[in-house]
Amino acid sequence: MALVVQKYGGSSVGDAAKIQRVADRIARRVRGGDQVVAVVSAMGDTTDELIDLARQISTRPSAREMDVLLHTGEIVSSTLMTMALHEQGIAAISLTGAQAGIHTDAVYGRARISGIDTERMRRELDAGRVIIVAGFQGLSEDFDVTTLGRGGSDTTAVALAAALKSDRCEIYTDVAGIFSADPRVCPAARPLRDIGYDEMLELATTGARVMHARAVEVGALYDVEILVASTFDETAPGTIIHRETTMEQANKVRGIAHQSQVAKVTVRAVPDRPGIAAHLFEPLAAAHISVDTIVQNASVEGLTDLTFTVASDDMAQAVDVVRKALPELGAEDVVTDGDLGTVSVVGTGMASAPGYAATMFRALFDGGINIELISTSDIRITCLVRKAQVADAVRVLHEAFALDRE
Amino acid sequence: MALVVQKYGGSSVGDAAKIQRVADRIARRVRGGDQVVAVVSAMGDTTDELIDLARQISTRPSAREMDVLLHTGEIVSSTLMTMALHEQGIAAISLTGAQAGIHTDAVYGRARISGIDTERMRRELDAGRVIIVAGFQGLSEDFDVTTLGRGGSDTTAVALAAALKSDRCEIYTDVAGIFSADPRVCPAARPLRDIGYDEMLELATTGARVMHARAVEVGALYDVEILVASTFDETAPGTIIHRETTMEQANKVRGIAHQSQVAKVTVRAVPDRPGIAAHLFEPLAAAHISVDTIVQNASVEGLTDLTFTVASDDMAQAVDVVRKALPELGAEDVVTDGDLGTVSVVGTGMASAPGYAATMFRALFDGGINIELISTSDIRITCLVRKAQVADAVRVLHEAFALDRE
Repeated sequence: MALVVQKYGGSSVGDAAKIQRVADRIARRVRGGDQVVAVVSAMGDTTDELIDLARQISTRPSAREMDVLLHTGEIVSSTLMTMALHEQGIAAISLTGAQAGIHTDAVYGRARISGIDTERMRRELDAGRVIIVAGFQGLSEDFDVTTLGRGGSDTTAVALAAALKSDRCEIYTDVAGIFSADPRVCPAARPLRDIGYDEMLELATTGARVMHARAVEVGALYDVEILVASTFDETAPGTIIHRETTMEQANKVRGIAHQSQVAKVTVRAVPDRPGIAAHLFEPLAAAHISVDTIVQNASVEGLTDLTFTVASDDMAQAVDVVRKALPELGAEDVVTDGDLGTVSVVGTGMASAPGYAATMFRALFDGGINIELISTSDIRITCLVRKAQVADAVRVLHEAFALDRE
Repeated sequence: MALVVQKYGGSSVGDAAKIQRVADRIARRVRGGDQVVAVVSAMGDTTDELIDLARQISTRPSAREMDVLLHTGEIVSSTLMTMALHEQGIAAISLTGAQAGIHTDAVYGRARISGIDTERMRRELDAGRVIIVAGFQGLSEDFDVTTLGRGGSDTTAVALAAALKSDRCEIYTDVAGIFSADPRVCPAARPLRDIGYDEMLELATTGARVMHARAVEVGALYDVEILVASTFDETAPGTIIHRETTMEQANKVRGIAHQSQVAKVTVRAVPDRPGIAAHLFEPLAAAHISVDTIVQNASVEGLTDLTFTVASDDMAQAVDVVRKALPELGAEDVVTDGDLGTVSVVGTGMASAPGYAATMFRALFDGGINIELISTSDIRITCLVRKAQVADAVRVLHEAFALDRE
């Protein structure tokens, strides 16, 4: 008897019929002898509908109130899934994030899990019940509702698997696994059989929207094996995310990731003295703005340009923050470009093997795609390109690295 | 500076525009110097929509899961109301029933409040915040969500007023107060300026659906003065429910109540021995079926007929329960009539003054309305009549007791 933690996304529980199909799937697993804890997202477009409702009332709704509002969506689907299991004759109970013992910090809208008290879940499992947990949510120390941000149900599931020392976490979604590139952009993309945590993390943070990056981080930290697979196509094997295995598998490009909503912010003529970067990025962090890539040009006559990228949605707020810091920085001005995207080549061991960067730049050049900025990590090379050329760049690179072949 | 607890029903918060109007009303009250705790119901038809969703999954959904499902409706409206107050520049915070410290027993679907821990509310009030409480819900000892039953937000409001030692509880609704009869049935009905707790209780339990009967009970127990008034018509004074005042006001018919969904269950040929009633009504109570009126006929040859009334919705379940008890009772059979209603004359001191019953029976007789069963309390005379004649009976009695005049 294995304890498995599953997660079903919003499209998997979009209506009563889909909920019943998922319940059927869970019921078969239980009859097969497994213990199941299933995390569910809100039904279909519920979260967007609740956001719309809030926007009718307020253009800048309080983050605390938004969390209380949005966390109801997952509660609704968790109760319906539980009822559907009851109809199948399966003992089951729904738990809210708070009831499941999920404690978080108090950063509304993107709270982080600080700990999980498994006592209630253990009690329900011992009583032979399937547990349906409302995803995406937790409780702060002050007994306030928090949410983990978009896609947070993935993190709920992996964190529960870690806390319950489950054998495996299964993320069910509307795609058949992790692909070598986004199939909507690159028809030649194919599903990967497995992938390492770090590679997946680079894919997730650089645009493969299949999984919440924090879920992968938690998986890596607690060594939870994660299966990403299709909810309704049970014939597709899906992709397993796990610790990087053999050296043979390393040293290879695994996938092409992309982002289409990237903005570049350049602080002009910053005096090149120690502490400048801290003075700039501390207030951005305080405003909870995620900075992706940072590039500082070589200094000319003691002045340098400092460029960073953020999500397009955060650009206006980032510029506000930077402008306020300009006097202290002694910098001249801020210029922005909101019409960009990124394309990334991801694979373990890339840094130690020459040639990947050259292949990438040559392929983009041959494809007529101009590179605006380059950044690299051990397992990733990312180029900033015009937003309109992102899709072309993905296809060109997918072919250049022969990712359409096994 | 007074602390006032208000309650706004579902039709008062039915859409964004209505929520904004209510927020405006609360904001004016706050600017006038009052501290406000406002309890809100779910928006418009939300509760019915959630019930529909559950029915698509299960014909007999688990009571625990229904409570978790339904309590989300009030949470949604509480956050939206809070956002609307923020837009008005008013400091405000939403609290779920659990966060407001509302503890209940674990009878899902009709839980009773066992206590209220006001610590969090006091803290928020001291911080100068308006509190918007999600009505109708609480938390059991086991940290499970409970709901107080239909109309439970009234009870939430009155109980909070009692716990916070508030000067007053104001129930805002889509009618202008308590009427001498249901205006939809009796056009001559007029709003009452005030009414006693007991009278209101009789009106509420015998069919005046303006207020949750348990809210009135709590008000009577803790001596909370309750104003029932219109949300959007601020010119209407509403009705004050309070302790019965002068003897002059007593001894008078105050209103006509009615119910249209009443079923009569008769247990035939029960041996007339001690303990029979207990054997019958204990299992009904255990099944949480509310029995309204009980009549036992005079015994003939040691056998008697025992008749009681229940809500039409409960009839099938009541018959199930009674049939199971038949062998132990030694009774012959159960017969039912599901097509009935009640009409009641309510007023303090009725029992001590002759003539009211005679007037009532004469008026019904003159109106061609047959009486199926009679029951009385100190302040009420109720007649069971055919469902089709209920509306006629209300109008006939309203006129007979001259309730259209001040």
